[in-house]
Amino acid sequence: MERYRDIHKLMPSVRLKINRVGVKGVRKQLVRECNGKLEVLNVKINAYIDIPATLKGAHISRNLEAINEIIEESIKGKIHNLEDFCVELAKKLLEKHEYASNSEVTLAAEYPVNKKTPVTGFSTQQMYKIHVGAFVWKEDNEIKVRKQIGVEIEGLTVCPCAQELVKSHIREALLNMNLREDLVNTIIEIIPIASHLQRGKALLIVHVWEHEKVDFKDLIEIGESSFSSPIYDLLKRPDERQLILNAHRNPKFAEDVVRTMLKNFLEKYGGKLSDDTLLIAQQESYESVHGHNVYAERILTLRELKEEVNG
Amino acid sequence: MERYRDIHKLMPSVRLKINRVGVKGVRKQLVRECNGKLEVLNVKINAYIDIPATLKGAHISRNLEAINEIIEESIKGKIHNLEDFCVELAKKLLEKHEYASNSEVTLAAEYPVNKKTPVTGFSTQQMYKIHVGAFVWKEDNEIKVRKQIGVEIEGLTVCPCAQELVKSHIREALLNMNLREDLVNTIIEIIPIASHLQRGKALLIVHVWEHEKVDFKDLIEIGESSFSSPIYDLLKRPDERQLILNAHRNPKFAEDVVRTMLKNFLEKYGGKLSDDTLLIAQQESYESVHGHNVYAERILTLRELKEEVNG
Amino acid sequence: MERYRDIHKLMPSVRLKINRVGVKGVRKQLVRECNGKLEVLNVKINAYIDIPATLKGAHISRNLEAINEIIEESIKGKIHNLEDFCVELAKKLLEKHEYASNSEVTLAAEYPVNKKTPVTGFSTQQMYKIHVGAFVWKEDNEIKVRKQIGVEIEGLTVCPCAQELVKSHIREALLNMNLREDLVNTIIEIIPIASHLQRGKALLIVHVWEHEKVDFKDLIEIGESSFSSPIYDLLKRPDERQLILNAHRNPKFAEDVVRTMLKNFLEKYGGKLSDDTLLIAQQESYESVHGHNVYAERILTLRELKEEVNG
Amino acid sequence: MERYRDIHKLMPSVRLKINRVGVKGVRKQLVRECNGKLEVLNVKINAYIDIPATLKGAHISRNLEAINEIIEESIKGKIHNLEDFCVELAKKLLEKHEYASNSEVTLAAEYPVNKKTPVTGFSTQQMYKIHVGAFVWKEDNEIKVRKQIGVEIEGLTVCPCAQELVKSHIREALLNMNLREDLVNTIIEIIPIASHLQRGKALLIVHVWEHEKVDFKDLIEIGESSFSSPIYDLLKRPDERQLILNAHRNPKFAEDVVRTMLKNFLEKYGGKLSDDTLLIAQQESYESVHGHNVYAERILTLRELKEEVNG
Repeated sequence: MERYRDIHKLMPSVRLKINRVGVKGVRKQLVRECNGKLEVLNVKINAYIDIPATLKGAHISRNLEAINEIIEESIKGKIHNLEDFCVELAKKLLEKHEYASNSEVTLAAEYPVNKKTPVTGFSTQQMYKIHVGAFVWKEDNEIKVRKQIGVEIEGLTVCPCAQELVKSHIREALLNMNLREDLVNTIIEIIPIASHLQRGKALLIVHVWEHEKVDFKDLIEIGESSFSSPIYDLLKRPDERQLILNAHRNPKFAEDVVRTMLKNFLEKYGGKLSDDTLLIAQQESYESVHGHNVYAERILTLRELKEEVNG
Repeated sequence: MERYRDIHKLMPSVRLKINRVGVKGVRKQLVRECNGKLEVLNVKINAYIDIPATLKGAHISRNLEAINEIIEESIKGKIHNLEDFCVELAKKLLEKHEYASNSEVTLAAEYPVNKKTPVTGFSTQQMYKIHVGAFVWKEDNEIKVRKQIGVEIEGLTVCPCAQELVKSHIREALLNMNLREDLVNTIIEIIPIASHLQRGKALLIVHVWEHEKVDFKDLIEIGESSFSSPIYDLLKRPDERQLILNAHRNPKFAEDVVRTMLKNFLEKYGGKLSDDTLLIAQQESYESVHGHNVYAERILTLRELKEEVNG
Repeated sequence: MERYRDIHKLMPSVRLKINRVGVKGVRKQLVRECNGKLEVLNVKINAYIDIPATLKGAHISRNLEAINEIIEESIKGKIHNLEDFCVELAKKLLEKHEYASNSEVTLAAEYPVNKKTPVTGFSTQQMYKIHVGAFVWKEDNEIKVRKQIGVEIEGLTVCPCAQELVKSHIREALLNMNLREDLVNTIIEIIPIASHLQRGKALLIVHVWEHEKVDFKDLIEIGESSFSSPIYDLLKRPDERQLILNAHRNPKFAEDVVRTMLKNFLEKYGGKLSDDTLLIAQQESYESVHGHNVYAERILTLRELKEEVNG
Repeated sequence: MERYRDIHKLMPSVRLKINRVGVKGVRKQLVRECNGKLEVLNVKINAYIDIPATLKGAHISRNLEAINEIIEESIKGKIHNLEDFCVELAKKLLEKHEYASNSEVTLAAEYPVNKKTPVTGFSTQQMYKIHVGAFVWKEDNEIKVRKQIGVEIEGLTVCPCAQELVKSHIREALLNMNLREDLVNTIIEIIPIASHLQRGKALLIVHVWEHEKVDFKDLIEIGESSFSSPIYDLLKRPDERQLILNAHRNPKFAEDVVRTMLKNFLEKYGGKLSDDTLLIAQQESYESVHGHNVYAERILTLRELKEEVNG
C-alpha cells in the first residue's frame, strides 16, 4: 500500500483530552483453564484508553489486536481468571497505546453453576452473570492496577410490609371466629402469611488491588443467600412448597437484601482485603403489584462498612 | 440536479418478488382529536409494501412522505383512531407505490388511563401499550382492508398449583395442633393461602374488517380483569392489603388468563363482529420462583371461539 | 408430603384449547461433540406444547426436566447438532405431556467462527447468532418432525441509489473541469463512488423434514456473502481499504441482499432438499442517513424459489 | 383497617445507611405549558432518596404520591421545564421522607422537533431523547439543588482514517492513468472521497445549579452539528445527495464529535454558567465495517474546558 498520512496522529482542531476512547460490545469466545478443566465462556468486552489533547484519534484497531492476543494466551492456559484476563488486556492496551496514561476493560459473561433443589436435592444448572474488569494507570513511573469482580444474581423477595398488613387481617378474621387470642397467635406463628413477592436481581461488585483475591463464586453465594429465597430453574413439588414456606418466613425489602449482602461480604472477606476495597451493592425488584421496579443501592469502602456495622 | 438513472426501476439480477420492504422503527408524535379533546401520542411505526420480481427496489422515501402526510391529516382532526391512522397510511402506500399489490402498517404507542385504587379510590395514572395496524391488498379490482386493534397489559398472577401445595401444608400443621377438622376447614376458607405470585404481561390482539369497530379501551379492560389482580402504580396500605387478599382468592395459570380474556372478549364482542375475526391472546408471567418466564398462547377465529366455548 | 389435588388436571372453567404453553428464555450451557472436539454453547431455550380444552394447566416443570435430561444426553456425546438437540427435546416433551398433540422448541446461541481478513489474511474470531428449532406433532399415529436451521449475520450494505446520485454529481463536476467525456467515464469507472453505507443484519431460516440436513455454517457463508461486504472485528489498514473499495463496487439494497441469499441458497441446496422446504430471508439495515431501519423480507417454499428464479 | 406495626420504621438487623432507595422506570404522561401551548410528553421516571442506618425501609409509596402531585401541578401550568419538574419532585421527596438527607430524580422523554432538509427545505419531524434530572441535598440547614439537562442525538460519522486510505488509492489509480499530478490533486479536491460511515449517537449532559438555565434545544443543536452530518427521517434525492457530499467533506472520529460538542457548548454557554458546571460528552458509533461500536467520552468541568481549550 502506498504512503498516506496517519490521520490519528494529527493535531486536533479542538485541543481537549479524551477520558475514554475505544470499543464497546466486542463479542468473543474465551477458553480458560480452571482446575485442570477447560472452560469456555462467551463474553462481551469494552476496552478503552485515554488520549492526550494533542492527538486527533486513538489507533482503535490496536484494541482488537490486544483482545486477540490475550485470547490466544488464554487458550494456552496462561490466564486463570476472568479478572486476570481483563488486567492483562488493560496492561497490553497501555503498551500498545504509548500516548495513553490509563486504560479500562470491562467484561460480561454468563456462568453456569449446578445447584441442588432444597428438598429433593435434584441437581439443576443455573446461569449467572459475571461482571469483571480492570483499571490500569501510570503513577510515579509505576503501573497501578485495580480489578473488579462482580456478579448479578436473580432471587426472590417477599415484602415484609404487605405481609404485616395481611397478618393483621388474618388476626382480626380469626378473632372474629371467637378463637382464643393465644390460639390465634399460635396459628399465625405456624402458617405462612401471604404477601406480595417477586423476582428481582442483585448486583454485588468489588474493586480491589491486583494482588488481592476475590472469588466470584463466593459473591454468587453471598448474593443469592441475601434474598428471601434463591430461585431455581426446576422445582419439583416438595421443593416448590418448601421454597415458598421458607421465603414467607424470610421477608426482605430491597434495603434488607443490600444490607445483608454487605454484612455477609464483611464476614467472608473483611479480614482478607484492604480497607480501601470499594463495594457496590444493588438490588432491584420487579414488583409484582406495580408496573415499575423498586431499587436500593449502597456504595462504600470496606473501611466504612467495618465502621458502620461494628461501630 | 442533473440526470441520473433511477436505480430502483432496474431489472434485478435475481428475479424474485419481495413480500415486504419498507421502514421499521420510525418514531413520530401524533396529535389526534378524541371526543373534542386533543390527544398527543408518541408512536413507533413500521410501514411495508411488496414489490414484483421485475423491480430492483422500492422507493422507500415515499413511505416517509406518506407518514408525514397522514400525520398532517391527523393534526387537522380527520383521523379519530390509531387503527384508522394505520388504514389511511396503508392505503396511501398502495397509491404511492403503483407497483405494489399489498401494504402493511403496524404502530405501537403508550396510552395513559386514570384508574382508581380498589379501597381508597385514589386516582392514579397507568400507562398501557397499544399495538394497532392495517393490512391492505388489491383483490378483484378492489381494495381489501383488515385492521388490527391490540393491547399489552401488565397484571398479577397467583399460582394455583403452589397455593394448593401450601394449603395442604397449612391443613396438616393445623391438624397437628389438634384443632377439629371443621375448624381447620373454616380457617383455611377464611385466610389467604400463600403461593408464588408475579407480574406478567398479556397481549390481546384482534383483526377485523375495515367497517368493524373494536375499542382498545375495552381490550384493556378485558385483559386487565383476566389476571389474578390488576396492578397499580400507587397503592395506599388498605389498597395493597385488599389487592393481595383478592389476588390470592383468584389464582390463575397463564392458561387461565388466556382463556378468560377470550371468554370475556366473546361476551363483549361476540355479537358485533364477523365470524372470521382473528384473535390472538397471549400471557407471559415473569415467574418469581424461576429465572425464566411462563408463556401461554391461543390464536383462533371468532367462529372457533364460539364453537369451543358454547360447546 | 401429604395429599393434595393436582390442580393442573382439573376441568378449566373456560373450555378452550391452548395452542402453546411452556417456558420462555431458559438459559443453559450445552456441551456437544463436534468432529471429535467438545464444543460449549450458551443457549436460550423456549419449549412449548399444546393442551386440550379439558385440562386446566400444563405440568410445566416437565419441560425443565426434559431440558435437563437432553442436556445430559448431549454431554454424553449423543447429540451432534443444535437442531437435533431441539428435535430430541421436542419429542421428549410429547412423551412427558401425554395430553399434548404437538410441541415446539426454539433455541438461540452465539457461535464463533475464525475468519481471515481480505488482504493481510489476519485470523480473527467472529461471533454469529444461531436460531434453530423443532416442531413435532402427532398425525395418523405417527410423529412428524420439522426442524429449523437459521442464522443471523451482520454485514455491510452500500446504497446503490445514493451512489448513482453521487456519480452524476462527480460526472458533472469533472465535465465542468473541461475533461473529455471518455476520460471522465474512465475516472468514474476506476474510483470508488461515495454513497451512504451502514451495518445491517440478515436472517436466513430454513424449515426442513427431520431426515434432511442443512449445515448452519453454509447458511452463515450464504448470508455473509450476500451483503455489499462482510464485516470483521479487526481490520488492518490494507484490509480496511480493500473492504471499502470492494463494498463500493458491490452496492446492495436490502431487497438485493434478500434475493441474493435466496439465489445462493438455491445453488447450494436446491438439489438436496424437498420442494416443501420453507425459506425465510430477511435483511434489516441500520440506515446511516436516517434514524430508522430499512427492512426487506421474502418467505417462500423451495418450489416457489425454483419456479421464480428459473422462470 | 385494624392496627399493625409500621415495618419500615423498625431498626434493621444490619445497621447500614442506604445511598439510594426508590422507584425505577415509572412511566407517566406529563402535560406542560410551553410558550402558551400545551405539550404532552411520555416520560420514564426514577426517584430515589437515602435512608439512615437506623431505618429498616423507606416508605416508597410516598415517591408515587409525590410523582402524582407534581404531575397535577404540571397540568395546572405551574411547571415550565422538564428539569424543573425533576427539581420540584426531588424537593417534595425530601419533604415527604423526613429521615432522608438527599434525593435524586432522573427522567427520560422523547421530544419532537421539526427540521428542514438541507436542499429542498422539506419539513420533517424528528424525535430526540431528553435526559433531565435533579439532585437535592441538605447542607448547613439549606437545601442545595443541582439539576441536569441532557440530550441524546443520532447523527452520521464518516471515518477520516479510512477516507485517507481511499484517497491514497484514488491518487495512485489516477496517476497510473498518466494524469498530471496537479490535475489529480484537483480531482481529489473536487470529488467526495469514499470511506466508511455510520449512524451513531451522542450524549451531551450538563449539571448546573438551580438558578442557572440551559435550554435542551440548544444542546440538541450543539450535538447535532458536531457530527459529520445530521440525519433526517425523510430525504428527497437532492437532499440525500447533498447530505452525502457534505458528510464526506466533514469526516469525524468519535473523538472529534466529543471535542466539537464541548467547544460549541463553550461558545454558547461559556459566559453564562458557573465554572463548576459539570459536562458529560459521549459519542458512540455503530461502526459499519465492524460488529462492535466505537466509543469516546469526556467528562469535565466548565473551568477545565475553558483552561484546556483556551490554553
